[in-house]
Amino acid sequence: MTMTDPIADMLTRIRNANMAMHDTVSMPSSKLKEALASILVKEGYIEGYEVTPAPKGPGSVLRIKMKYAPDRTRTIGGLRRVSKPGLRIYAQADRLPRVLGGMGVAVVSTSQGLMTDKEARRRRVGGEVLCYVW
Amino acid sequence: MTMTDPIADMLTRIRNANMAMHDTVSMPSSKLKEALASILVKEGYIEGYEVTPAPKGPGSVLRIKMKYAPDRTRTIGGLRRVSKPGLRIYAQADRLPRVLGGMGVAVVSTSQGLMTDKEARRRRVGGEVLCYVW
Repeated sequence: MTMTDPIADMLTRIRNANMAMHDTVSMPSSKLKEALASILVKEGYIEGYEVTPAPKGPGSVLRIKMKYAPDRTRTIGGLRRVSKPGLRIYAQADRLPRVLGGMGVAVVSTSQGLMTDKEARRRRVGGEVLCYVW
Repeated sequence: MTMTDPIADMLTRIRNANMAMHDTVSMPSSKLKEALASILVKEGYIEGYEVTPAPKGPGSVLRIKMKYAPDRTRTIGGLRRVSKPGLRIYAQADRLPRVLGGMGVAVVSTSQGLMTDKEARRRRVGGEVLCYVW
Protein backbone atom coordinates (compact mmCIF):
# COMPACT_ATOMS: atom_id res chain seq x y z
CA MET A 1 0.00 0.00 0.00
CA THR A 2 1.29 3.43 -0.88
CA MET A 3 0.97 5.83 2.01
CA THR A 4 -0.74 8.98 0.78
CA ASP A 5 -0.39 10.91 4.03
CA PRO A 6 2.33 9.63 6.40
CA ILE A 7 1.77 12.48 8.89
CA ALA A 8 -1.97 11.67 9.16
CA ASP A 9 -0.93 8.04 9.71
CA MET A 10 1.49 9.08 12.48
CA LEU A 11 -1.15 11.22 14.22
CA THR A 12 -3.68 8.36 14.01
CA ARG A 13 -1.22 5.88 15.52
CA ILE A 14 -0.43 8.26 18.39
CA ARG A 15 -4.15 8.99 18.90
CA ASN A 16 -4.96 5.26 19.06
CA ALA A 17 -2.05 4.52 21.42
CA ASN A 18 -3.17 7.42 23.62
CA MET A 19 -6.76 6.16 23.76
CA ALA A 20 -5.58 2.64 24.66
CA MET A 21 -2.92 4.12 27.01
CA HIS A 22 -0.17 2.11 25.37
CA ASP A 23 3.37 2.91 26.55
CA THR A 24 4.90 3.00 23.10
CA VAL A 25 3.84 3.11 19.47
CA SER A 26 6.02 2.32 16.44
CA MET A 27 5.83 3.25 12.78
CA PRO A 28 8.02 3.61 9.69
CA SER A 29 10.23 6.67 10.19
CA SER A 30 11.04 9.67 8.02
CA LYS A 31 12.89 12.94 8.48
CA LEU A 32 9.61 14.82 8.81
CA LYS A 33 8.19 12.37 11.38
CA GLU A 34 11.41 12.56 13.42
CA ALA A 35 11.25 16.38 13.36
CA LEU A 36 7.61 16.23 14.51
CA ALA A 37 8.49 13.76 17.29
CA SER A 38 11.31 16.07 18.38
CA ILE A 39 8.82 18.92 18.77
CA LEU A 40 6.44 16.69 20.75
CA VAL A 41 9.31 15.92 23.18
CA LYS A 42 10.23 19.58 23.62
CA GLU A 43 6.60 20.60 24.10
CA GLY A 44 6.12 17.91 26.74
CA TYR A 45 3.55 15.77 24.92
CA ILE A 46 5.62 12.57 24.77
CA GLU A 47 8.35 11.01 26.96
CA GLY A 48 10.74 10.65 24.04
CA TYR A 49 11.32 8.89 20.78
CA GLU A 50 13.76 6.35 19.43
CA VAL A 51 15.00 5.63 15.91
CA THR A 52 16.39 2.22 14.97
CA PRO A 53 17.03 0.51 11.63
CA ALA A 54 14.06 -1.30 10.07
CA PRO A 55 14.39 -5.04 10.89
CA LYS A 56 14.18 -5.82 7.19
CA GLY A 57 14.60 -3.61 4.18
CA PRO A 58 15.86 -0.04 4.10
CA GLY A 59 14.68 2.81 6.29
CA SER A 60 14.20 3.25 10.02
CA VAL A 61 11.58 2.61 12.66
CA LEU A 62 10.30 5.44 14.86
CA ARG A 63 9.19 4.42 18.33
CA ILE A 64 7.29 7.02 20.34
CA LYS A 65 7.24 6.73 24.13
CA MET A 66 3.84 7.95 25.25
CA LYS A 67 3.45 10.15 28.31
CA TYR A 68 0.84 9.89 31.04
CA ALA A 69 0.55 11.66 34.37
CA PRO A 70 1.27 9.64 37.55
CA ASP A 71 -2.49 9.37 38.10
CA ARG A 72 -2.71 7.82 34.60
CA THR A 73 -4.41 10.81 33.01
CA ARG A 74 -3.41 11.56 29.45
CA THR A 75 -0.90 14.24 28.50
CA ILE A 76 -2.20 14.51 24.95
CA GLY A 77 -5.78 15.76 24.74
CA GLY A 78 -5.95 15.43 21.00
CA LEU A 79 -4.19 15.71 17.66
CA ARG A 80 -5.65 17.01 14.44
CA ARG A 81 -4.24 17.02 10.93
CA VAL A 82 -4.72 20.48 9.38
CA SER A 83 -2.96 20.71 5.99
CA LYS A 84 -3.56 17.60 3.89
CA PRO A 85 -2.14 16.35 0.59
CA GLY A 86 -5.47 17.16 -1.08
CA LEU A 87 -5.85 20.55 0.58
CA ARG A 88 -2.70 22.29 1.72
CA ILE A 89 -3.19 24.93 4.43
CA TYR A 90 -0.65 27.74 4.68
CA ALA A 91 -0.53 30.70 7.04
CA GLN A 92 1.54 33.85 7.04
CA ALA A 93 3.46 34.75 10.20
CA ASP A 94 0.79 37.22 11.36
CA ARG A 95 -2.04 34.78 10.61
CA LEU A 96 -0.72 31.70 12.39
CA PRO A 97 -3.44 29.88 14.34
CA ARG A 98 -3.48 29.69 18.14
CA VAL A 99 -4.62 26.36 19.52
CA LEU A 100 -7.01 26.51 22.50
CA GLY A 101 -5.84 30.03 23.33
CA GLY A 102 -2.23 28.91 23.62
CA MET A 103 -2.90 25.71 25.61
CA GLY A 104 -2.04 23.64 22.54
CA VAL A 105 0.41 24.06 19.68
CA ALA A 106 0.16 24.28 15.93
CA VAL A 107 3.11 22.64 14.16
CA VAL A 108 4.23 24.64 11.15
CA SER A 109 6.54 23.60 8.32
CA THR A 110 8.54 26.71 7.42
CA SER A 111 11.54 27.52 5.24
CA GLN A 112 13.53 27.37 8.49
CA GLY A 113 12.27 23.90 9.36
CA LEU A 114 9.48 22.49 11.48
CA MET A 115 8.48 24.56 14.51
CA THR A 116 5.60 25.52 16.78
CA ASP A 117 3.31 28.45 15.99
CA LYS A 118 4.90 30.32 18.91
CA GLU A 119 8.41 29.90 17.50
CA ALA A 120 7.25 30.80 13.96
CA ARG A 121 5.60 33.96 15.31
CA ARG A 122 8.82 34.88 17.15
CA ARG A 123 10.87 34.37 13.97
CA ARG A 124 8.19 36.03 11.83
CA VAL A 125 7.94 33.16 9.37
CA GLY A 126 4.82 31.50 8.03
CA GLY A 127 4.37 28.10 6.45
CA GLU A 128 2.26 25.02 6.05
CA VAL A 129 0.18 24.23 9.14
CA LEU A 130 0.76 20.49 9.56
CA CYS A 131 -1.30 19.77 12.67
CA TYR A 132 -2.65 20.85 16.03
CA VAL A 133 -1.71 19.11 19.26
CA TRP A 134 -3.32 19.90 22.63
CA MET B 1 30.74 27.14 28.88
CA THR B 2 29.49 28.22 25.51
CA MET B 3 29.75 25.46 22.95
CA THR B 4 31.52 26.80 19.87
CA ASP B 5 31.15 23.66 17.78
CA PRO B 6 28.39 21.28 18.92
CA ILE B 7 28.95 18.92 15.96
CA ALA B 8 32.66 18.56 16.79
CA ASP B 9 31.60 17.84 20.39
CA MET B 10 29.16 15.16 19.17
CA LEU B 11 31.80 13.50 16.98
CA THR B 12 34.30 13.54 19.87
CA ARG B 13 31.79 11.94 22.24
CA ILE B 14 31.00 9.20 19.72
CA ARG B 15 34.71 8.68 19.00
CA ASN B 16 35.48 8.32 22.72
CA ALA B 17 32.53 5.98 23.33
CA ASN B 18 33.66 3.90 20.34
CA MET B 19 37.24 3.65 21.63
CA ALA B 20 36.01 2.61 25.09
CA MET B 21 33.34 0.37 23.48
CA HIS B 22 30.59 1.93 25.55
CA ASP B 23 27.05 0.84 24.65
CA THR B 24 25.55 4.32 24.72
CA VAL B 25 26.66 7.93 24.78
CA SER B 26 24.50 10.94 25.70
CA MET B 27 24.73 14.65 24.94
CA PRO B 28 22.59 17.78 24.71
CA SER B 29 20.40 17.45 21.62
CA SER B 30 19.65 19.78 18.71
CA LYS B 31 17.82 19.50 15.40
CA LEU B 32 21.13 19.21 13.54
CA LYS B 33 22.48 16.52 15.88
CA GLU B 34 19.25 14.52 15.56
CA ALA B 35 19.45 14.78 11.76
CA LEU B 36 23.06 13.57 11.87
CA ALA B 37 22.13 10.69 14.21
CA SER B 38 19.32 9.75 11.83
CA ILE B 39 21.84 9.46 8.97
CA LEU B 40 24.18 7.35 11.14
CA VAL B 41 21.27 4.93 11.75
CA LYS B 42 20.38 4.67 8.06
CA GLU B 43 24.01 4.19 7.06
CA GLY B 44 24.42 1.42 9.64
CA TYR B 45 27.00 3.10 11.89
CA ILE B 46 24.90 3.12 15.08
CA GLU B 47 22.14 0.90 16.50
CA GLY B 48 19.78 3.82 16.97
CA TYR B 49 19.21 7.01 18.88
CA GLU B 50 16.75 8.26 21.46
CA VAL B 51 15.55 11.75 22.33
CA THR B 52 14.14 12.55 25.77
CA PRO B 53 13.53 15.81 27.62
CA ALA B 54 16.48 17.24 29.54
CA PRO B 55 16.11 16.25 33.23
CA LYS B 56 16.36 19.91 34.21
CA GLY B 57 16.00 23.02 32.14
CA PRO B 58 14.76 23.27 28.57
CA GLY B 59 15.97 21.22 25.62
CA SER B 60 16.39 17.52 25.00
CA VAL B 61 18.98 14.82 25.54
CA LEU B 62 20.25 12.74 22.62
CA ARG B 63 21.34 9.21 23.48
CA ILE B 64 23.23 7.30 20.80
CA LYS B 65 23.22 3.51 20.92
CA MET B 66 26.62 2.41 19.67
CA LYS B 67 27.01 -0.56 17.34
CA TYR B 68 29.58 -3.33 17.50
CA ALA B 69 29.83 -6.58 15.57
CA PRO B 70 29.05 -9.85 17.44
CA ASP B 71 32.81 -10.48 17.74
CA ARG B 72 33.08 -7.04 19.43
CA THR B 73 34.81 -5.35 16.55
CA ARG B 74 33.87 -1.72 15.95
CA THR B 75 31.39 -0.63 13.29
CA ILE B 76 32.75 2.92 13.20
CA GLY B 77 36.34 3.14 11.99
CA GLY B 78 36.55 6.86 12.50
CA LEU B 79 34.82 10.23 12.36
CA ARG B 80 36.32 13.48 11.22
CA ARG B 81 34.96 17.01 11.37
CA VAL B 82 35.49 18.73 8.00
CA SER B 83 33.77 22.14 7.93
CA LYS B 84 34.37 24.08 11.16
CA PRO B 85 32.98 27.34 12.53
CA GLY B 86 36.34 28.99 11.84
CA LEU B 87 36.73 27.50 8.36
CA ARG B 88 33.60 26.48 6.53
CA ILE B 89 34.07 23.91 3.78
CA TYR B 90 31.57 23.82 0.94
CA ALA B 91 31.44 21.60 -2.13
CA GLN B 92 29.40 21.79 -5.30
CA ALA B 93 27.46 18.71 -6.38
CA ASP B 94 30.13 17.64 -8.88
CA ARG B 95 32.94 18.23 -6.38
CA LEU B 96 31.58 16.30 -3.41
CA PRO B 97 34.25 14.24 -1.65
CA ARG B 98 34.23 10.44 -1.64
CA VAL B 99 35.34 8.87 1.63
CA LEU B 100 37.68 5.87 1.35
CA GLY B 101 36.55 5.23 -2.21
CA GLY B 102 32.92 4.93 -1.13
CA MET B 103 33.51 2.79 1.98
CA GLY B 104 32.68 5.77 4.18
CA VAL B 105 30.27 8.67 3.87
CA ALA B 106 30.57 12.44 3.84
CA VAL B 107 27.63 14.17 5.54
CA VAL B 108 26.57 17.28 3.67
CA SER B 109 24.29 20.07 4.83
CA THR B 110 22.33 21.16 1.74
CA SER B 111 19.36 23.42 1.02
CA GLN B 112 17.34 20.19 0.99
CA GLY B 113 18.54 19.15 4.43
CA LEU B 114 21.29 16.92 5.77
CA MET B 115 22.27 13.97 3.54
CA THR B 116 25.14 11.73 2.52
CA ASP B 117 27.46 12.62 -0.35
CA LYS B 118 25.85 9.82 -2.36
CA GLU B 119 22.35 11.24 -1.91
CA ALA B 120 23.57 14.79 -2.63
CA ARG B 121 25.23 13.58 -5.84
CA ARG B 122 21.99 11.85 -6.87
CA ARG B 123 19.99 15.02 -6.25
CA ARG B 124 22.71 17.19 -7.77
CA VAL B 125 22.97 19.53 -4.80
CA GLY B 126 26.07 20.73 -3.03
CA GLY B 127 26.52 22.15 0.44
CA GLU B 128 28.60 22.36 3.57
CA VAL B 129 30.65 19.21 4.23
CA LEU B 130 30.01 18.61 7.93
CA CYS B 131 32.03 15.46 8.52
CA TYR B 132 33.35 12.13 7.28
CA VAL B 133 32.37 8.81 8.85
CA TRP B 134 33.92 5.50 7.93
